[in-house]
Amino acid sequence: MTDTPRLPPGFIASLCSLLGERAVLRDSNTMAPYCIDQRQRYSGPALAVLLPASVEQVQGIVALTRAAGVAIVPQGGNTGLVGGATPLAGGPACVVLSTARMKAVRAWQDDTITVEAGLILDELNQLVAGRGQFLPIDLASSGSAQIGGLIATNAGGMRVIRYGMMRRQVLGLEAVLPSGELWSDLRPLLKNNSGYDLKQLLIGSEGTLGLVTAATLRLAPLPAHTATAFVALPSVAAGLRLLAALREHVAEWLSAFELISEPCLRLVRAAEPRLQAPVAFDQPWYALVEASGSVDETALQAALLAAFEQAGLAQAAIAQSQAQTDTLWRWREQIPAAQKHAGGNIKHDIGVPSAALPEFVAAADAALRSRFPGVEIIAFGHAGDGNLHYNVARTRDKPADTFLDEAEVNAIVYREVARVGGTPSAEHGVGQLKRGLLPAWAGETGMQWMRSIKATLDPDGLFNPGKLL
Amino acid sequence: MTDTPRLPPGFIASLCSLLGERAVLRDSNTMAPYCIDQRQRYSGPALAVLLPASVEQVQGIVALTRAAGVAIVPQGGNTGLVGGATPLAGGPACVVLSTARMKAVRAWQDDTITVEAGLILDELNQLVAGRGQFLPIDLASSGSAQIGGLIATNAGGMRVIRYGMMRRQVLGLEAVLPSGELWSDLRPLLKNNSGYDLKQLLIGSEGTLGLVTAATLRLAPLPAHTATAFVALPSVAAGLRLLAALREHVAEWLSAFELISEPCLRLVRAAEPRLQAPVAFDQPWYALVEASGSVDETALQAALLAAFEQAGLAQAAIAQSQAQTDTLWRWREQIPAAQKHAGGNIKHDIGVPSAALPEFVAAADAALRSRFPGVEIIAFGHAGDGNLHYNVARTRDKPADTFLDEAEVNAIVYREVARVGGTPSAEHGVGQLKRGLLPAWAGETGMQWMRSIKATLDPDGLFNPGKLL
Repeated sequence: MTDTPRLPPGFIASLCSLLGERAVLRDSNTMAPYCIDQRQRYSGPALAVLLPASVEQVQGIVALTRAAGVAIVPQGGNTGLVGGATPLAGGPACVVLSTARMKAVRAWQDDTITVEAGLILDELNQLVAGRGQFLPIDLASSGSAQIGGLIATNAGGMRVIRYGMMRRQVLGLEAVLPSGELWSDLRPLLKNNSGYDLKQLLIGSEGTLGLVTAATLRLAPLPAHTATAFVALPSVAAGLRLLAALREHVAEWLSAFELISEPCLRLVRAAEPRLQAPVAFDQPWYALVEASGSVDETALQAALLAAFEQAGLAQAAIAQSQAQTDTLWRWREQIPAAQKHAGGNIKHDIGVPSAALPEFVAAADAALRSRFPGVEIIAFGHAGDGNLHYNVARTRDKPADTFLDEAEVNAIVYREVARVGGTPSAEHGVGQLKRGLLPAWAGETGMQWMRSIKATLDPDGLFNPGKLL
Repeated sequence: MTDTPRLPPGFIASLCSLLGERAVLRDSNTMAPYCIDQRQRYSGPALAVLLPASVEQVQGIVALTRAAGVAIVPQGGNTGLVGGATPLAGGPACVVLSTARMKAVRAWQDDTITVEAGLILDELNQLVAGRGQFLPIDLASSGSAQIGGLIATNAGGMRVIRYGMMRRQVLGLEAVLPSGELWSDLRPLLKNNSGYDLKQLLIGSEGTLGLVTAATLRLAPLPAHTATAFVALPSVAAGLRLLAALREHVAEWLSAFELISEPCLRLVRAAEPRLQAPVAFDQPWYALVEASGSVDETALQAALLAAFEQAGLAQAAIAQSQAQTDTLWRWREQIPAAQKHAGGNIKHDIGVPSAALPEFVAAADAALRSRFPGVEIIAFGHAGDGNLHYNVARTRDKPADTFLDEAEVNAIVYREVARVGGTPSAEHGVGQLKRGLLPAWAGETGMQWMRSIKATLDPDGLFNPGKLL
């Protein structure tokens, strides 16, 4: 990659002078991992990959790129699934700005902590575990996902049912705006009604309105006790009956409710044949359920059992050791890897009103099976929040024969999502992948409103162009 | 009040034709309660008070007022404390739009309910109590505060420590924008990352960006068991030690932590001499503490006692009956009325980092007492959230002599708030009262950003002019 002709002379030199040579990656091999998403579905060129070490350097970068008319693609841990942090193929000249070097802990008082955007979720949780605290966002990519990216995408995961999404954990925010100005409000306040809550606009805006450089987060106390169970379900509807029973018996201790369809377990079993099955895999659906809190394990287990009994579910296993707990979670957590191992699949991250889950699954399954006989449907996810990763793959028996048209699969799935008033993106965001779905979701007034907000903050469209909007 | 000359002919007639004569109040006596705030500190004229019955009528009103260049002052239960729902004295020609007649329940499924803006909080809670649910916003004005106003002001109250503010309860929103367009997303989804979360901008914007007409809310399960206690504290710092002990022992069951200074209790005693004192009133501070959840009263009470013991607090009373519980709460809830009864006071609704509460109280107390000897400081509030209603009154002994300059009192209080990184409005909002404080709080970039958002959505400044911004 070389400078495009219209770049002002000395653009790269100025960046090198601002950041130091080693923080300006220009070699195509070095840049490669920043220019492609983790699923390797999106890639695009960048003039450089920049690794600033401070908010002042980020402001300096924005000043230089603005002057040069160069776009910025902000990137955290590059763990997203919608191409939101990858340069556009054929897009405007851009640099990738990685926050990986900005990792400082700026303040930590009681249960609030102020950290820079590049701190990795696991790093944060290792740091605060000593004080019995954690940031209650739990997702597969916790070993690489950065705080800034978690905020920019309003990350969800496996404990939203108890703790809410990333938005709820953010008390304060600091961001560099497309104008180059720094907007900063990192005050660790639990309540504040002084004017518009500007940080809410940045959270979940996928780097299109501002570049998050630091945040003040609220930490939760690590629960003293936990009980984990795996239970077989005759149907999605039985899963909802179980959820209702859990809300009654496990109540404030319910901290995870993951629905898993049988094909997911088959995939994991194929990838890890020696992983012990907690129950017989002879039902179409399963749930991984976690209770945690201040009452002891015996009480939590009794509450789980009471819920299983009320829901009429007999095929259940409750972990009796940490090793068994780890095994139960492994059946859930290895699904994405096992799926990848088994071949390509078309991913969906749909959210529907919880009560509509059985209706959605039945309708989408039927429509897909009718159009693509033998199609493999690999559905799992955070059903307590109405959120299902509803993935579609070629049938295993005849991989070569079965042709799956992605556009047609998507059309079927999103038609059924819309029919029950659901969202095409419950937690993964829009990025490049779902831009085309946004108008139907948001409506004309919503789209106009979003565009006017974008135009107000980023009139030249230099922050993450071609994403979200 | 008569039409100002610049009104187009037939403006009022058109409103009457749209809403019906009885929904267009024009008589000054009938209009009076809508044109003055509940504390009777703000009042202003209106061309009419309008009582639409449907969202279509609200849109019709916006079309007519826009065409006429008339402003709209949205009003819910008129329970605010900052003049946010009152016409400006000497302001532009306006109508008051009251949502009082819009009370429909549009949908109710599981733990999500869609209601119109005019439904009163107590009405909603009476409705859903039968299913063991409630909207977990608990404030003194629950008998008149409307859902729309609670959303427009992001209301807080006494159970924020457990359930969060109104923002957290809102899943979907419908609003008429200043353009007259209806923006509606009432889908009952627990998770959604499809584009900018536009509702977040309306929540807490005090009617300056849009007029909330309906909302989809998440209901919480009514806790099965509750324990309530009253405890004497030697200092604010002891209160924080108690809070830390409560977080350890009462943990997920902590549902209220209200700090009360001794003068508050004296005022309540003067107003209600027969109300039984739970403990001897010989300490400077007290806390009202509530634990609630799925474990029984005995366990909750034991957890409270363990916390009191750990914090070294011996003077404590735990309610043993509903009557005793009611009495404990009465000591807290009657403070505002008793204060009003005792005469005028200068109210503050400050929020500081929790750990800074002792420092703030000591510094503000000292500065006020030094400048206004004998001044009465009536502080109480939601200390678990760092939120204190820090009110200042003339000394009781020499009411006639002691002159309190409001501007000077405010300057002292807000100087100390700013020194510890606090907010001038934790939950009451900005309205007219705190507009002047906003620039110092938000900074230049923040103010520019707020103004640009306002200009984008309401370029003519017709929605609640002179409030917030």
